[in-house]
Amino acid sequence: MSLVLRSYWRSSCSWRVRIGLNWKQLSYDVVPVHLVADGGHQHTDEHRALNPMRELPVLLVEGQPLAQSVAILEYLEETHPEPPLLPKSSLDRARVRQMTEVVNSGIQPIQNLRVMQRLGREYELPRTDQVRWSRDWIAQGLSALEKLVSEHGGRYSFGDAVSFADLCLVPQLYNARRFDVDMTAFPVLTAVEAELASLPAFVAAHPDQQPDAV
Amino acid sequence: MSLVLRSYWRSSCSWRVRIGLNWKQLSYDVVPVHLVADGGHQHTDEHRALNPMRELPVLLVEGQPLAQSVAILEYLEETHPEPPLLPKSSLDRARVRQMTEVVNSGIQPIQNLRVMQRLGREYELPRTDQVRWSRDWIAQGLSALEKLVSEHGGRYSFGDAVSFADLCLVPQLYNARRFDVDMTAFPVLTAVEAELASLPAFVAAHPDQQPDAV
Repeated sequence: MSLVLRSYWRSSCSWRVRIGLNWKQLSYDVVPVHLVADGGHQHTDEHRALNPMRELPVLLVEGQPLAQSVAILEYLEETHPEPPLLPKSSLDRARVRQMTEVVNSGIQPIQNLRVMQRLGREYELPRTDQVRWSRDWIAQGLSALEKLVSEHGGRYSFGDAVSFADLCLVPQLYNARRFDVDMTAFPVLTAVEAELASLPAFVAAHPDQQPDAV
Repeated sequence: MSLVLRSYWRSSCSWRVRIGLNWKQLSYDVVPVHLVADGGHQHTDEHRALNPMRELPVLLVEGQPLAQSVAILEYLEETHPEPPLLPKSSLDRARVRQMTEVVNSGIQPIQNLRVMQRLGREYELPRTDQVRWSRDWIAQGLSALEKLVSEHGGRYSFGDAVSFADLCLVPQLYNARRFDVDMTAFPVLTAVEAELASLPAFVAAHPDQQPDAV
């Protein structure tokens, strides 16, 4: 199966999919798409034809473009079920998906680059206010996730097996540090992160390991 | 199976799940949670214990609380596969999930009540600017969805079968009208909406049919 991932080194949603592809031991080519240079290469005609939302990542499967990181991860799980990234029971799977969506829809969309850019461009908020905006949304969402992982986690976010929730957690904590979120409030999440950090699929997916890293 | 849905009549994420429960012909009790009165009943200790994100909906399955509308819909699909809300092939399922996430993570989280409230409370944006904020994000996201449904849709958002994407589309178009989005830009989406409007599962889930409707 030919797989091409359009990715940016620091895009947290691209990072989730990189971990997923690595976890499934799938080989893929990376096409870097720079989110900042020239106003953002996600706005080019070439990229918009692949994803009208003008976002990353896009996974090309035999040339067919798929976007939205969670949709891509579900696709990888269905087509390559081993090693798994979801538990077996439906209720457990629902809990993992709940944690996944806390990050995917509850935190990241409100703190991402396009939102901050619009706060500055159209509403003239200074950079310090933009950063505070993102910091506070991240802190609020991670507080909820800390509680969920305290209840349902073990070595990892859900029990002792790596899941979608971990693929979302690691990039979100990286973003949290970029915005100076007080990480001492999240001892459970940072303990899980420490367990994940040395796993090969996570090591290879880190932004600093990407071909477009600065 | 005992099912209790904590819901608010105008909450678009609660609405998606109401349609899903109706579609699967599951009976459920509704517990209304008022998102505005007294500063919002989603902030009570009772509700936070069920969902630390302080959001709706929450589905109690035999007393176990599940949050995040997409996680709940996936759970319903796994436990009650007929009648389906996802197609059979993995690539088709990925497309439906992509459309679902365009609304779930790409539009709704950025235009919802808590975001508008924070723009007003902390950044002192007047109500007109808050409304413009939401209107523009909705219009931008729906433009992408219009393109995806033009490519992959039929009678409904994906082909000729009702799917998760339709459950997200209908409440998002309702929100679009509340914020005076120019709907003439979305002829394909509004044609799908017209097809869906008369289906019993959709009729019964409409905000005006809810016990807490004003």
